Amino acid sequence: MTVAATSDLVACVRAGQELACARLMSLAERGDPRFGALHDGFFRELGRARRLGITGPPGAGKSTLVEALALHWRRQGRTLGIVAVDPTSPFSGGALLGDRVRMGRLALDKGVFIRSMATRGVFGGLARATDDVVDVLDLSGRDTLLIETVGVGQSEVDIARSADLTVVVLHPGGGDTIQAMKAGLMEVADLYLVNKSDLPGLDRLVQQLHDILELREIPPGERPPILVSCATEGRGVGELADTLDALCAERARDGRQARRRTENFERRVRRLVDGRLRHDVWEAEALGGLLAARVAQGLPQPAYGLSDEILSLYRIRRGDGDTR
Amino acid sequence: MTVAATSDLVACVRAGQELACARLMSLAERGDPRFGALHDGFFRELGRARRLGITGPPGAGKSTLVEALALHWRRQGRTLGIVAVDPTSPFSGGALLGDRVRMGRLALDKGVFIRSMATRGVFGGLARATDDVVDVLDLSGRDTLLIETVGVGQSEVDIARSADLTVVVLHPGGGDTIQAMKAGLMEVADLYLVNKSDLPGLDRLVQQLHDILELREIPPGERPPILVSCATEGRGVGELADTLDALCAERARDGRQARRRTENFERRVRRLVDGRLRHDVWEAEALGGLLAARVAQGLPQPAYGLSDEILSLYRIRRGDGDTR
Repeated sequence: MTVAATSDLVACVRAGQELACARLMSLAERGDPRFGALHDGFFRELGRARRLGITGPPGAGKSTLVEALALHWRRQGRTLGIVAVDPTSPFSGGALLGDRVRMGRLALDKGVFIRSMATRGVFGGLARATDDVVDVLDLSGRDTLLIETVGVGQSEVDIARSADLTVVVLHPGGGDTIQAMKAGLMEVADLYLVNKSDLPGLDRLVQQLHDILELREIPPGERPPILVSCATEGRGVGELADTLDALCAERARDGRQARRRTENFERRVRRLVDGRLRHDVWEAEALGGLLAARVAQGLPQPAYGLSDEILSLYRIRRGDGDTR
Repeated sequence: MTVAATSDLVACVRAGQELACARLMSLAERGDPRFGALHDGFFRELGRARRLGITGPPGAGKSTLVEALALHWRRQGRTLGIVAVDPTSPFSGGALLGDRVRMGRLALDKGVFIRSMATRGVFGGLARATDDVVDVLDLSGRDTLLIETVGVGQSEVDIARSADLTVVVLHPGGGDTIQAMKAGLMEVADLYLVNKSDLPGLDRLVQQLHDILELREIPPGERPPILVSCATEGRGVGELADTLDALCAERARDGRQARRRTENFERRVRRLVDGRLRHDVWEAEALGGLLAARVAQGLPQPAYGLSDEILSLYRIRRGDGDTR
């Protein structure tokens, strides 16, 4: 792709062209330096779309819910972008046992753009790539962006936080749900959704959530709402959508959205710097090759001593580079 | 702690003293530079213990299994170290709803050292800290080290791989298990354990595992064994322990353990370098303060442009430092 072609690409994304979106996203995922240059050209246009993180343990029904929400908002004339970072999501492709069937209703709708993120092979980390992909959807003019992540694992929960609002989806039955919440899910929820309300144990789970919020001493006025749904049957989805609409509008007004976006931006710059430093050391300076050569000499070797050595080499080379 | 005190500490760990182990682990978790220096002094003594990663989705019964395995091996006179990185594990402390009760049988046994890892507040990443904590247990003379992680999320799965052998624990019922396996669990398993064998769907899950291994075209002789257990009742635990004993012995003989340890060592050095670079940039060079100041000026700002700026500053300062 030439420079001219990449600047055309941004124009085509602005015009909402799907193929252009997909190509710009691929540049981002690969960590192509042209993406950063392009991004610095269009960042002022971002922030129009609202960004909703949907997370929760496997089996909570997140994908079904995302689909139901998308269909609901489509009927109201909204346009959507869906980013599936959740390896357990049928949106994420590579469906192991053919569970993509359900996606049919959205797949043919031009008003919905679905992007699944690979959990590996993404340059500089999944969170970095997700930020960029969501920005491309924002630039493309879609007004509501849903980011689905599996809510177990620190990095996945972090991605869910990088939204304006984070919905934590749980389901009754077993202690798994509450267990999974220890993974940091409690802290990131702006709204709890108890899905699969047809399963036994609904009341108990809702009560547990109330108890936990009380234990954490969150003042009643500031507690995340707890809603109930049965997404497979569409029950509770309208109420959820309306609540999210209201919360987004409220937070845009009262400054909370701006504060949240500032926090997210700061974390994002840190991630970018960290990813590029890693690239510098291992790829640009080829210290990965040096490490491999040393390791090939056999163990035991000092992990800390060797890391000192690599860091020193990196610093010296960088120093040389800068003083030249 | 003085220098004399820290070198005493290593001697006390070698002698197996629990308090010394805990203190050395805390140094590691905090990223205290003295830990690296101490580690470079004792790394040659490491590698005697066998290291087993136990991972799987929430609800598979990993903690119960770890406890049952530990009790089994204790009866054979082995000494154990248990590291719980799994936020859903009762070993991990902070038990939300009082599920620590079960741990009673192990907690009073001097032959078992249990360490839970916080999922946050650990310097330089959980994987880095886990490597170090496991090394301390190895140094302390315990012969079997169990590392429990929740098998959803790339970083958690990575930690489970940093062992000599990785057991993936699954349970029948729901599609969750197979779904969760898309998170990269398939690739890291050296042994599959289908736990909770009393639940309906056992045969189907076992068949699915066989099918998946066949689909991946792994030659029959190299396929990870698939075992079945009901850890709460102790069924299948002895067979699992015996199989693990045999696999460990076989891999120590045929060179696979050495290759695995070499791979793990290489990944570990990378993690160390990455974590220390992050520390350099954000803490030592105080560029975190610069970022915060810039962010305080309000959005929009260029994420990539700002990361360029921070990287340039870092490189210039490093260059100065090295040429001084």
